[in-house]
Amino acid sequence: MNNLFAQRLTKLTDPTVQNALRLASKKGIISFGGGLPNPDLFPLREIELSLLKILRLNGKATLQYSQTAGLPELRELIARNLSVKWKKKVDPEEVLITSGSQQGLDLLGKAFLDKNNYVLVENPTYFVALNAFNGYEAKYKTISLNPDGLNVKQLTKILNHSAKRVKFLYVIPTFQNPSGITWSKKVRVEVIKLIKKHRLLLIEDDPYSELYFDRRSPLNLAGYQHEGLIIYLGTFSKTLCPGLRVGYIVASKDIIAKLSLIKQGMDLHTSTLSQALVVEILKQNQTYKAHLNKIRNYYREQSQYMLLCLNKYLKQKAMWNIPAGGIFIWLKIKKGGCRELYKKAVDSGIAFMPGYTFYANMPKENTLRLTFATISKKEILKGIKILSKILPPEN
Amino acid sequence: MNNLFAQRLTKLTDPTVQNALRLASKKGIISFGGGLPNPDLFPLREIELSLLKILRLNGKATLQYSQTAGLPELRELIARNLSVKWKKKVDPEEVLITSGSQQGLDLLGKAFLDKNNYVLVENPTYFVALNAFNGYEAKYKTISLNPDGLNVKQLTKILNHSAKRVKFLYVIPTFQNPSGITWSKKVRVEVIKLIKKHRLLLIEDDPYSELYFDRRSPLNLAGYQHEGLIIYLGTFSKTLCPGLRVGYIVASKDIIAKLSLIKQGMDLHTSTLSQALVVEILKQNQTYKAHLNKIRNYYREQSQYMLLCLNKYLKQKAMWNIPAGGIFIWLKIKKGGCRELYKKAVDSGIAFMPGYTFYANMPKENTLRLTFATISKKEILKGIKILSKILPPEN
Repeated sequence: MNNLFAQRLTKLTDPTVQNALRLASKKGIISFGGGLPNPDLFPLREIELSLLKILRLNGKATLQYSQTAGLPELRELIARNLSVKWKKKVDPEEVLITSGSQQGLDLLGKAFLDKNNYVLVENPTYFVALNAFNGYEAKYKTISLNPDGLNVKQLTKILNHSAKRVKFLYVIPTFQNPSGITWSKKVRVEVIKLIKKHRLLLIEDDPYSELYFDRRSPLNLAGYQHEGLIIYLGTFSKTLCPGLRVGYIVASKDIIAKLSLIKQGMDLHTSTLSQALVVEILKQNQTYKAHLNKIRNYYREQSQYMLLCLNKYLKQKAMWNIPAGGIFIWLKIKKGGCRELYKKAVDSGIAFMPGYTFYANMPKENTLRLTFATISKKEILKGIKILSKILPPEN
Repeated sequence: MNNLFAQRLTKLTDPTVQNALRLASKKGIISFGGGLPNPDLFPLREIELSLLKILRLNGKATLQYSQTAGLPELRELIARNLSVKWKKKVDPEEVLITSGSQQGLDLLGKAFLDKNNYVLVENPTYFVALNAFNGYEAKYKTISLNPDGLNVKQLTKILNHSAKRVKFLYVIPTFQNPSGITWSKKVRVEVIKLIKKHRLLLIEDDPYSELYFDRRSPLNLAGYQHEGLIIYLGTFSKTLCPGLRVGYIVASKDIIAKLSLIKQGMDLHTSTLSQALVVEILKQNQTYKAHLNKIRNYYREQSQYMLLCLNKYLKQKAMWNIPAGGIFIWLKIKKGGCRELYKKAVDSGIAFMPGYTFYANMPKENTLRLTFATISKKEILKGIKILSKILPPEN
């Protein structure tokens, strides 16, 4: 039983998220970790009424096997909403329902990656996406992030030298996880120009763009003309609730047909009940819009309060970005490393996501990710004070 | 964009199930195809009440992210029920919740299969399992089925010659899909002896054992002492309802820990709402047991009626097994092939699952799978009459 497990498992050994989720749910800990939305914002009453309605009107079908690509009604609603958002026609057959966008990532890895293929990723990037691609033994080239988004010069250079060895570019252009950075319009246009030139596939992971604070988030990359080169990942985890595991992929019909065949072998289809519930919620368009406004207001306020606390207690010891949306603030500490700090933090009653985990190749040790999503203002204040105390003094 | 897709996709091209599901839901067609349970048997009222209860008592947690390995309460309930069924201790940490047992198959492929590894399978076998393993570029050796189960002589021979090249043995020992065959106790004991001798991993896929007709189904392979070599796949799709996508894997703690890490990259976790609902249903133990009895009675009656019709109208043109449980009857036609027959069938208003699709290597063309699960007696009679008409005459 020496070679019991497949080779790909050598890369799948980091239980960071599982530990973080466990810690985040530990009583008494103030958790800046995890990427969980605030459950107080789940529209419980609407969900309850919707479930009742679905079961009474269409119970049997809601509990039965359903089509691999997703409930036709859900694919239609998503296509219609995106057509409005992107001001261009999106066809229901360009939409595939996934079991959360995490499954979307796994599915795309399975569809496109042969062993040792290169994936281009932002540095830092969402590490559970790497976990999905690692399952197909990908290698990575990283591209740094400027305050206005992807470093286009670096991308140009890499593509000029080795475009053929790269399978796709994976990015989170809006309120990025973990950095909070949003690509400017200029960067978006330039990157699309580059991928067209090199015929490079781009995966746009977009869990946060609906969570803007002040002005509407910039047009998604997939909203531009892109000659079928962009595959878009959306989800209801941050806008509605994550427990249902409903996400979606938007891509050309050919690609969606292939992905659907692959998904069949992965889980036959996404929970029919979860999908039917999302259909019912989306159909109540005005209520859903009001709900989105409510959560935007909430996250904006939380973010502002966290920034206030950071300004007051951490100015000497760290630097951070000011996000325009999403749920993360990315910290660079001036002294010490995030691993030691993490141990101290947990002993002192706080948790965060240590930054080293967000790097595909060379981890930086002076970074950490904070979220303001799930904790009260009182806890934010208390937690930031603790963080300030355990950070090494400036000199 | 020539090599756009990964190499593994060359083996993933059979849309048979998708077509069958589409056909099965077509109005007016009498479908012996698909493997769907009868939705009239879903305990709708209990499900509705359970959902209300969950949402009122624990709504926020039910809609939030949850642990990758599954809700602790569900793992405990499954472990407890299996401990009783198998008369040996099953630990909750030996249980992992999956998004249907189809995800279990994908997960096990990802965990164990490197390119060109051999998998031993029954001939015929469940083709969507092959679809999952194909995703990891497996090769197959097939072992024929006798009326009392796996051909032990063939297995012995293969293991004596090439045990080291084989990664695992995949079987459905109880009310097999598609053949309906159930392994005898003798075959079970002999196969377990063989896998111990060769230290071979065995995957026992068991969606149907609760659907026995007269006497209780034989002890699952996983219920024997097996030195950690057996990985068991269970599901609530056939006993409760499939739309929730809740299944589970039972294996040693070490293996479950690895599988859990892999699952994290696949979909983070299975729908919390679906899992919470299953917990609530399982907690109402007496009601659930009564429900199981009800569906057993129903499927027994349906099977008997179908056998009656087959005896009356198909005796000259086909042979079939008499299942002791499950939802399938496997037909061997005496003349002609199932592909031509399938086209005729659809034109004549009936559908079935053509047999060629159930063979890992060399398809047999004279077989087809019928299910009696979802159609009325009147439809069974009418459908079998049609089948009899379109089958070529004996001579």
